[in-house]
Amino acid sequence: MKFKLPNGQEAIFTSEITVEPIQHMGGDHMVVAAARVSVSGTEAVSFADPSKVEESAGLINYLMKQRHGTPFEHGGITFFVNAPIFVWREWHRHRVGFSYNEESGRYKQLEPKFWIPASTRKMVPTENYKAARPTFQAGTPEEHVWIVNDIIDSCSDAYTRYQERLDRGYAKEVARVTLPLNIFSSCWVTCNPRSLMAYLSLRTHDAAAQFVSYPQAEIEEAARIVEKIFKEYWPITYAAFVKNGRVGP
Amino acid sequence: MKFKLPNGQEAIFTSEITVEPIQHMGGDHMVVAAARVSVSGTEAVSFADPSKVEESAGLINYLMKQRHGTPFEHGGITFFVNAPIFVWREWHRHRVGFSYNEESGRYKQLEPKFWIPASTRKMVPTENYKAARPTFQAGTPEEHVWIVNDIIDSCSDAYTRYQERLDRGYAKEVARVTLPLNIFSSCWVTCNPRSLMAYLSLRTHDAAAQFVSYPQAEIEEAARIVEKIFKEYWPITYAAFVKNGRVGP
Amino acid sequence: MKFKLPNGQEAIFTSEITVEPIQHMGGDHMVVAAARVSVSGTEAVSFADPSKVEESAGLINYLMKQRHGTPFEHGGITFFVNAPIFVWREWHRHRVGFSYNEESGRYKQLEPKFWIPASTRKMVPTENYKAARPTFQAGTPEEHVWIVNDIIDSCSDAYTRYQERLDRGYAKEVARVTLPLNIFSSCWVTCNPRSLMAYLSLRTHDAAAQFVSYPQAEIEEAARIVEKIFKEYWPITYAAFVKNGRVGP
Amino acid sequence: MKFKLPNGQEAIFTSEITVEPIQHMGGDHMVVAAARVSVSGTEAVSFADPSKVEESAGLINYLMKQRHGTPFEHGGITFFVNAPIFVWREWHRHRVGFSYNEESGRYKQLEPKFWIPASTRKMVPTENYKAARPTFQAGTPEEHVWIVNDIIDSCSDAYTRYQERLDRGYAKEVARVTLPLNIFSSCWVTCNPRSLMAYLSLRTHDAAAQFVSYPQAEIEEAARIVEKIFKEYWPITYAAFVKNGRVGP
Repeated sequence: MKFKLPNGQEAIFTSEITVEPIQHMGGDHMVVAAARVSVSGTEAVSFADPSKVEESAGLINYLMKQRHGTPFEHGGITFFVNAPIFVWREWHRHRVGFSYNEESGRYKQLEPKFWIPASTRKMVPTENYKAARPTFQAGTPEEHVWIVNDIIDSCSDAYTRYQERLDRGYAKEVARVTLPLNIFSSCWVTCNPRSLMAYLSLRTHDAAAQFVSYPQAEIEEAARIVEKIFKEYWPITYAAFVKNGRVGP
Repeated sequence: MKFKLPNGQEAIFTSEITVEPIQHMGGDHMVVAAARVSVSGTEAVSFADPSKVEESAGLINYLMKQRHGTPFEHGGITFFVNAPIFVWREWHRHRVGFSYNEESGRYKQLEPKFWIPASTRKMVPTENYKAARPTFQAGTPEEHVWIVNDIIDSCSDAYTRYQERLDRGYAKEVARVTLPLNIFSSCWVTCNPRSLMAYLSLRTHDAAAQFVSYPQAEIEEAARIVEKIFKEYWPITYAAFVKNGRVGP
Repeated sequence: MKFKLPNGQEAIFTSEITVEPIQHMGGDHMVVAAARVSVSGTEAVSFADPSKVEESAGLINYLMKQRHGTPFEHGGITFFVNAPIFVWREWHRHRVGFSYNEESGRYKQLEPKFWIPASTRKMVPTENYKAARPTFQAGTPEEHVWIVNDIIDSCSDAYTRYQERLDRGYAKEVARVTLPLNIFSSCWVTCNPRSLMAYLSLRTHDAAAQFVSYPQAEIEEAARIVEKIFKEYWPITYAAFVKNGRVGP
Repeated sequence: MKFKLPNGQEAIFTSEITVEPIQHMGGDHMVVAAARVSVSGTEAVSFADPSKVEESAGLINYLMKQRHGTPFEHGGITFFVNAPIFVWREWHRHRVGFSYNEESGRYKQLEPKFWIPASTRKMVPTENYKAARPTFQAGTPEEHVWIVNDIIDSCSDAYTRYQERLDRGYAKEVARVTLPLNIFSSCWVTCNPRSLMAYLSLRTHDAAAQFVSYPQAEIEEAARIVEKIFKEYWPITYAAFVKNGRVGP
């Protein structure tokens, strides 16, 4: 949704987080090749061949089940992600096997693009809500409209002030301090299949998982896109991950 | 500075970031003991003795100069830090040798405590400003008052909306999305002397450093407190760090 | 057992690996304090108090069960370990949350101290032996004596050659290349409770563990000493680790 | 050189370490794209284009000079390496940004392939030798022949014993304990340009480097092959690395 700010600028309000795959290396065959070196030595290199991987689905499943994690590190994938800062605050806490480069509020003016909840966003606590295990339901249409308008008003006010501070010559890094947590920011994210699965296991909710996680819906939305891409590039590994309770190996 | 919000709540506006040391282990003697194992083998353990460390200042300086980093990892220190979110956004990007646990906007109501610039805060660009190397000067008293008031107004508006959303029953994790980046948050931070020096080298500005950094003033303020504490617990290591151009070993 | 080499030097042959705790910081109370910051904010610091920890055993158990790992990182422990190189080859593969400084075969002459199996060492495969899940039984007294003598002879030969090369002036780093994998080496090891539990989960065998590991007996021997020390300093955390299937959180 | 062991097996003695590139992702363009996100936001993705990278050599050089390291993490490369264990002992100490899977002496019989010094190998200390800065010169032909023969004899003895133990039914993991440190082992190694440069800076000797390292010749031999491959895939990054004193960014 586009919205004109009081100062005439056009702001974007959206519920959509974007995750684009940019590059990747490896695949299920590299998991197999990496694992087989322990018993095959120099011949392991012959397994680094996508055409032979089907016959090794059992090995991949075994590695996943036994949590033999290192063979899942010989690959990589880079995403370009556009998400609100409150999502980045969670994502950036993944330290091992994750690399980041993000847009800077010190060196560039941030764009007026803000997150708002979709009407389906569960945000009114259910009756059996517990602090450590929050459960929510979608609000009424009125509840949705009210908060969307309140968020739009708040962001409009904050961005208008931001623009005026910049116009008056204040340093970007100070002008931005009252921008809201739902402003979008772009970031490069590079990880490997192992660190990616650790991320998925914590940032998606699946009642059937061996260790059930309760992530915020927005990082889960990003994680579900990551998961879909992962499934495409590492289908056998992904199937084993799901089959074995979504435990990061 | 305390400030009454429109809804009667009392908000705090401050320029002060706090960093408290909670626990630490190790000291200069452990750097020496760790390094000496390479040539002393089982006898290295005898060097893990604070009373003998003075005579080893030369060794510590040599390790620092040559960037032999691992002996600086056999120690640890935990801080309890209260800082605005825009500082955490930078601090949390230190991944290796850093552990964090932070206050959660999903599980608790955040307190109305916000950062404002002190009058000495350089925030008006100087004439020879360059994007990649921002240089600022303090503004006039009027410039300072104007932005402090603008920040206070913005935070008051944002927090009042936040409180109303909570009062109406919206989930904390949604209600908080328009809180500003200058709201304070508490976090445990644990690191070791090596990761601490990497942090100092990037988050403090020293024209005499071998690789000069240009950090934002607020994370530098935190880093300078960290530095002072580090100097107290690892005085010989610290002196060698400064002497050798503040390069993380 | 002491043994005189052909050149008159005295060599040591032993089955014992030693692990000495040197320093540590933290304890169960820091796990609690780190976890409580998420809902307690600035008041979390009041939990960093060993006297109050008993009442929080339930919280620690909950963190372990749910695999909330980060609160277990705000502590540290340093060991001084003397173990054969084939053990170090496995131990050093623990990369995250582990720091090492080891004796150097380039800069010092290695001592003639070698590992031999105890008579109880299971080393003859059982009938239902599988490559990926090796199971062994102790050999007969004759089988034990034979291999101990064979190891002693091999080490005597290798060390005698090593000494002669050094006497002839060859570089230590070349002279040592035919020293055997069972020669002992000393190393400093620093880790935190989280990385320590990851190590225990992989390097100890427990049929009741959720993910059963099959480590080599010698690294397990070291791990069992580490475990005992860990239990002493973090008793509640340790109990929760065992109760929840020895899964690294 | 092939050599028949007393038991009729053929052993290989060689000075050659092999490093084969298997897969890689990224290139200089990804360094640029990752860095530009800080000032370009969502448009940064347009820089992830190899055809435009030439014009950005200045940016890459600036990043290297200022030690802005994270843009160099959005890439990856996997090597298959065959090297003696004394080389692995050093290589495996690179923990951050490195993944490994190695041949197992517990699960397979190790091949009789052993390292010997080439005639050009400097192994006799020079007159101005210092313990912390070892300098060597090549020995006489006689000195070379003597040690090669001594190494061959030692390995022959050790491997013959190993084979006999296996023939007698002892567990591989015990039989192998007196194999020498110069036996070859295969390993998968995956890293990124940043961790690769940290490795190069420590494992190559260059008198012109800003921080001069004194690695053992054999790991340097491996590192020089790694360096050549790195230069091929990241030519601008490599040139900037060399130009700026071979300091890991």
